[in-house]
Amino acid sequence: MFLNNGWYVAALSRELGRQPLARWILGEPLVMYRTAAGEAVVLSDRCPHRGAQLSKGCLDGDHLVCGYHGFTFDPTGRCVRVPGMERVPEQASVRRYKAVEAWNWLFVWMGDAAAAERTPLPDYRWLTEPGWAGRDELLEVKADYTLVRDNLLDLSHAKFVHRNTLATDAVTETPVRAAIDEGMVRVTRDMLDIEPSPFFKRLRGFAGRVDHSQIIEFTPPCHIVIKVRVASVAASGEGKVAEMRVLNALTPERPGATHYFWGMARNFATDDRQATDLAHTLNRDTFFEDVAVLEAQQVMLDSRPAGWAPVSVPADRGCVLADRVMKQLIDAERRAHPATA
Amino acid sequence: MFLNNGWYVAALSRELGRQPLARWILGEPLVMYRTAAGEAVVLSDRCPHRGAQLSKGCLDGDHLVCGYHGFTFDPTGRCVRVPGMERVPEQASVRRYKAVEAWNWLFVWMGDAAAAERTPLPDYRWLTEPGWAGRDELLEVKADYTLVRDNLLDLSHAKFVHRNTLATDAVTETPVRAAIDEGMVRVTRDMLDIEPSPFFKRLRGFAGRVDHSQIIEFTPPCHIVIKVRVASVAASGEGKVAEMRVLNALTPERPGATHYFWGMARNFATDDRQATDLAHTLNRDTFFEDVAVLEAQQVMLDSRPAGWAPVSVPADRGCVLADRVMKQLIDAERRAHPATA
Amino acid sequence: MFLNNGWYVAALSRELGRQPLARWILGEPLVMYRTAAGEAVVLSDRCPHRGAQLSKGCLDGDHLVCGYHGFTFDPTGRCVRVPGMERVPEQASVRRYKAVEAWNWLFVWMGDAAAAERTPLPDYRWLTEPGWAGRDELLEVKADYTLVRDNLLDLSHAKFVHRNTLATDAVTETPVRAAIDEGMVRVTRDMLDIEPSPFFKRLRGFAGRVDHSQIIEFTPPCHIVIKVRVASVAASGEGKVAEMRVLNALTPERPGATHYFWGMARNFATDDRQATDLAHTLNRDTFFEDVAVLEAQQVMLDSRPAGWAPVSVPADRGCVLADRVMKQLIDAERRAHPATA
Repeated sequence: MFLNNGWYVAALSRELGRQPLARWILGEPLVMYRTAAGEAVVLSDRCPHRGAQLSKGCLDGDHLVCGYHGFTFDPTGRCVRVPGMERVPEQASVRRYKAVEAWNWLFVWMGDAAAAERTPLPDYRWLTEPGWAGRDELLEVKADYTLVRDNLLDLSHAKFVHRNTLATDAVTETPVRAAIDEGMVRVTRDMLDIEPSPFFKRLRGFAGRVDHSQIIEFTPPCHIVIKVRVASVAASGEGKVAEMRVLNALTPERPGATHYFWGMARNFATDDRQATDLAHTLNRDTFFEDVAVLEAQQVMLDSRPAGWAPVSVPADRGCVLADRVMKQLIDAERRAHPATA
Repeated sequence: MFLNNGWYVAALSRELGRQPLARWILGEPLVMYRTAAGEAVVLSDRCPHRGAQLSKGCLDGDHLVCGYHGFTFDPTGRCVRVPGMERVPEQASVRRYKAVEAWNWLFVWMGDAAAAERTPLPDYRWLTEPGWAGRDELLEVKADYTLVRDNLLDLSHAKFVHRNTLATDAVTETPVRAAIDEGMVRVTRDMLDIEPSPFFKRLRGFAGRVDHSQIIEFTPPCHIVIKVRVASVAASGEGKVAEMRVLNALTPERPGATHYFWGMARNFATDDRQATDLAHTLNRDTFFEDVAVLEAQQVMLDSRPAGWAPVSVPADRGCVLADRVMKQLIDAERRAHPATA
Repeated sequence: MFLNNGWYVAALSRELGRQPLARWILGEPLVMYRTAAGEAVVLSDRCPHRGAQLSKGCLDGDHLVCGYHGFTFDPTGRCVRVPGMERVPEQASVRRYKAVEAWNWLFVWMGDAAAAERTPLPDYRWLTEPGWAGRDELLEVKADYTLVRDNLLDLSHAKFVHRNTLATDAVTETPVRAAIDEGMVRVTRDMLDIEPSPFFKRLRGFAGRVDHSQIIEFTPPCHIVIKVRVASVAASGEGKVAEMRVLNALTPERPGATHYFWGMARNFATDDRQATDLAHTLNRDTFFEDVAVLEAQQVMLDSRPAGWAPVSVPADRGCVLADRVMKQLIDAERRAHPATA
């Protein structure tokens, strides 16, 4: 039910070190660590000998040593030592997952390694680009990654879920445009000459009315960048502009559970550490409002009767398109590799 | 496995107000609230849009507003507003469940609404009738409603489960009469010239021996009224009489879990608040003795081997008849509506 | 998946008394108690009447009285009383399990009672034999009994799991000999002229080098005796010898959960209570190191993909043989009694 051939965020770079880190992704147990030279390594966390959890072991140089009987693996997953044996059995190796670090996030490829070469990383450059400031973190959600995705693709929920923070009447009144563009889904909403949201009032100090545009870009399998631009309306003479990028990687832990990696970057007051704290905290608080909704929604969907199907409306056009794009990719993958289906 | 066409107690009237109340019944999620005029409304708790839990939303007048994207439903379950849309999609409605309030309990009909007209409410009038006093409450039990039902239909357990409170030797020594009467099951036990139970001694102050009769009436799908009459034997000259009604509605939350609504009413010392407190507390304590037995019994039945069947004895004749009545009703419902089976 | 025709340890003798004791073995609920004369009784814990848990009841002399409706069973499991009935229904009995007490442990036979006569008890005589001292206890492990078994049959894990206590380099460097001998599996490792382990240094005060031999004997279905002999090498002139027996009965509670009964006996300093405390505590601590490994291993095996199979190496030869012996016994039992499969 998941797309294997896709880039998933597996960890924040700062989580990765010389202590093996365990994490489940797409229902598979992974162990991650850094070599002495700092390279990220991602292996299957199941020892081929008796099934012990490798992440309970420790590193010996760049090698991972199983904490049960000492089977030792190099960073490619090849077993290089079995205590008491001269020659290591060939099949005693673990799968290595292709991994790439960029913008302080670690991306892992869960499918066919050859296909990874043809697929660019999703673009999260604002996490580290000069001229932008912000912060990232990992939150765990007991809801499917598709529910978190649809939450972000239909921001009309802001008025109801975040009525004390992000809400503006305009977000529900202004229709969205949604379209598929080269395998991505782009949802656009331009709210012209509106009262700024409490969030932007507080963060950027808008006094008068603003034009507020949202561009939400979904890249398979689970990446969403929200590009927000808020600018004083010309007539006000206030002349303020604020841009933000809300960066969201929704990595499935398993069906019904998501590792939610998120960050936020802004192009104003970039040296203001307090503004970073404030923006991060405000957005985090709104996210906990979402979590309560999403986890209850998961329970309702888990118990839905046979034949239940959601009723779609224009505001969730982006969700419908994302679902369509993903279904096509997953179907194509199944046709190509029926054995892994 | 449940009977849909039947009245189930969904809530105590005092639980219902202007804050939406969530409760699962027969494995279905319900949301309940009162209109401004005080009418009880029971709807499906699953928003037709994306499956959010409606009870996490709030009321706008008599309308229920989903807390996710603001879909708004009137008390009939019809969607009357979708933010950002002029015309509401027709299929965007939720099921309304027929509900009737009586004797300070809310009854809900889970099946075909037309059939509800032909089926009278179970009779719990002693909860509010002048000349009777008592109290009610809701307890949650991790055991199937059939186990709670059979507990009440075979009171011979009192001597063992409640040996310090309700026990009399007579309850096991006196045989019961059990019969089906117009779709109800009635179990009768007349214990003549016996020592009164500790419960009645304490509550009514019997000094000498009594005649104690129990009439247990089961009405499908899950209603049990226990009519108890205790009277001093004529020879004693004490001349005391006490009548009680123990009222039990065993609403299935799902298989293996029961919302147990119960109340007790007595026709003596009706102005004595302390007697009400005492009677309620004593009965509640005996019920917790039952819960320990029932929850362990559920575990034993969940793990029973294929082919295991209970051994029936005369004392549980009422349980056997109730089971037979329910099987017939459920079979008839399945034949009439095979799709819902 | 379990072998029914086998002796399983059900309890420590000191757990058994006049209060019914509940325990699940091979996925079946058992109740155990002692008669007034001290005889151990093991019955099914599920009342044939309505499925109540018999162990929630109490004893009346040598009879077990169900705490729900008073059905009463003699030590053979025959129902001897149903309150309110003159004649007890014949089918109202519970299964009695054959049980034998030896060396302060209670053994139960879960299969065909006739087969029990042909099968000797596993030998744990060192628990009570003069000239030996030690202690026993019961620990619960959330891992399959086969994982605990394989942990004990391949002690090469000591160097990794117990690197601060039992570890010696020799345990991984010295090859084992493993063989099936009359239905048992015997694994032998002779480590000559080695540095003694911290455990034996502390307990027996070895100063110089030692010869350390391990004989591990597996008896189906789940019994492992580890015979350890440590002796000063002749050249040292120290002249010390220490023998220990580590006694392990791995009773399946259900798949993935084990009642682990273990004891340790030594033939030196047998009057030294402090040495008993120390030996017991040290071994117990090492066992908790194992538990962390085993419970994580269970998770990894529960989630293993179809077709995953362990890679075997010489050190786990004993595990492979034990697995083979058990498969043969279970297959033979299924062929003889297809109905119970």
